[in-house]
Amino acid sequence: MDGSTVQPHGGDLGVMSALFPDAFRPWIDLSTGINPWPYPLPALDPALWARLPSASDAAALQRAAMAAYGVADPDAILAAPGSQVLINGLPFLRPPGDDIAIVGPTYGEHQPAWARAGHRVRMITDLPDPAGPLPDVLLLVNPNNPDGRTHDPARLLPLLEALACRGGWMLVDEAFCDLRPDLSLAALAGRRGLLVLRSFGKFYGLGGLRLGFLLAPPDLVRAVSGRFGPWAVSGPALVVGATALSDQGWQKAMRRRLAQAMARSLSLYQKAGVELIGGTDLYALIRTRIERDLYRELGQAGLLARSFRDRPGLLRLGLPPDSVAMDRLTKVLIP
Amino acid sequence: MDGSTVQPHGGDLGVMSALFPDAFRPWIDLSTGINPWPYPLPALDPALWARLPSASDAAALQRAAMAAYGVADPDAILAAPGSQVLINGLPFLRPPGDDIAIVGPTYGEHQPAWARAGHRVRMITDLPDPAGPLPDVLLLVNPNNPDGRTHDPARLLPLLEALACRGGWMLVDEAFCDLRPDLSLAALAGRRGLLVLRSFGKFYGLGGLRLGFLLAPPDLVRAVSGRFGPWAVSGPALVVGATALSDQGWQKAMRRRLAQAMARSLSLYQKAGVELIGGTDLYALIRTRIERDLYRELGQAGLLARSFRDRPGLLRLGLPPDSVAMDRLTKVLIP
Repeated sequence: MDGSTVQPHGGDLGVMSALFPDAFRPWIDLSTGINPWPYPLPALDPALWARLPSASDAAALQRAAMAAYGVADPDAILAAPGSQVLINGLPFLRPPGDDIAIVGPTYGEHQPAWARAGHRVRMITDLPDPAGPLPDVLLLVNPNNPDGRTHDPARLLPLLEALACRGGWMLVDEAFCDLRPDLSLAALAGRRGLLVLRSFGKFYGLGGLRLGFLLAPPDLVRAVSGRFGPWAVSGPALVVGATALSDQGWQKAMRRRLAQAMARSLSLYQKAGVELIGGTDLYALIRTRIERDLYRELGQAGLLARSFRDRPGLLRLGLPPDSVAMDRLTKVLIP
Repeated sequence: MDGSTVQPHGGDLGVMSALFPDAFRPWIDLSTGINPWPYPLPALDPALWARLPSASDAAALQRAAMAAYGVADPDAILAAPGSQVLINGLPFLRPPGDDIAIVGPTYGEHQPAWARAGHRVRMITDLPDPAGPLPDVLLLVNPNNPDGRTHDPARLLPLLEALACRGGWMLVDEAFCDLRPDLSLAALAGRRGLLVLRSFGKFYGLGGLRLGFLLAPPDLVRAVSGRFGPWAVSGPALVVGATALSDQGWQKAMRRRLAQAMARSLSLYQKAGVELIGGTDLYALIRTRIERDLYRELGQAGLLARSFRDRPGLLRLGLPPDSVAMDRLTKVLIP
């Protein structure tokens, strides 16, 4: 039903089992940047499945998301069934033929989404000069996936001004910004030319729930809302999202836990002599030595890593969820 | 977050509580056409919430839906987070300015969705003559909501031929066709010009899950899929959908149960001297006598009906879920 991805994404155990039929079981999935310690699901009223998602539950989610992200204008935020449908849908809101510049390498779904809508897409390696020639849409992921590269908001603001003046967009995918709220532009939601994507599933460890947000000027929020209609987000997602986004205690403790866990991973990589390219507290991008096919070695040991077709030698590894996973990873890295 | 609907839809208890603050509690919701006896939720692996929806679960849902609807071509079907996002999104796949004819009165979300995408929309009361002038898109709901009017596939086929020849579409919303599989055009999925919408939540009583399907020619399926991207449907929806769509025993028993329950409702309406306009086994459209404000009387008794702003005097009533609801309804209708 989805013919758009040739390279397997992270997180699909079916695909991986086909690649490594004789591997150690059970599989341990380190191939995504999804938090391995999910937000504990609250008890769900059966009516959340049975009835249409209610306007009051949608309003509660909106309030929770506004507070969590620091959004002041209720007309500048829209919930969606995951941020991926926004990534795929937003390019169709601009007339085809626009000049799209993506700061990369980055998350692989952005480029094909804009190309599919008939735009000219080019990859750039650094932010353009606000005083120089500018694209119609500047797209960046902050912090970046997979290398964790960050963009200082102070450098982004003059660019946003310059883009907005000429009808352009700055589209910032903040999928991993829960880890680095200091980098977020969410508090500017509603400002002309600024579009921010927030993902719920990654930090809260609930990628299967499908919940994400668009922060954008009200006219754009209305346009996207008109293409979704009511009830695009499921009843359970409304309630789980509202609960988790309001739980500041869990958020604070989880940020600490993830930082400690990543410190342990990085210490292992250092001992193993693995070169660290970058990352966030949810994933690390490493370069493997040319003489080792580490992806295959990990796969045989039942550990799924994320490789990149156009960047051989690089692997992204999520956090090992427990000591069993950590032990297996250690054995492969320090044989 | 959804500014598109002025009139409250059925099924929102928050809105209704505001209208009838002093009404009898708990509310009993008769305002939707959603089955009050939901498909029993299977035990859900926590990984369905945590991980991204897997390609193998998506493939299993696709197989189950193809078998349930009688679709032969796997490229002619696409799962979506509810059929409403398809209703809102499809109008943007045609260049603005098309002539859209909707057979009505019918489900109120179709007309604004096409208008929003810049088309000229007109309501027609009967199917056009295949040999006469035809619209670019002919839209019908079969069986129709709220009056249960049906269109014989034998009358639709020549129209489909005529529309397809000139690049037109026949868009058939089969939201309630699980009750009348004999009316469905699903087996023709993939044929040029034919688009069929199937809703999962209504017959299976799981409107909060958000699951629906587009059956259409492969190029259209690809276009819509490209606007959704991977993972538009949640992990739980993939598994619940596949299980329920494969459960022929439940489907058969439920069709019987719904028919018996509607027979009891119709017998009550007859005894009460209420005029029946039409319906399906999930809802009945009745005309109330001019001297009674039945909507208000029901509301005060804690029973939610569905009224229609532009058609005063008509009410749609779903199935009373239990004897408490049936007793309350009886007391209002036969005071």
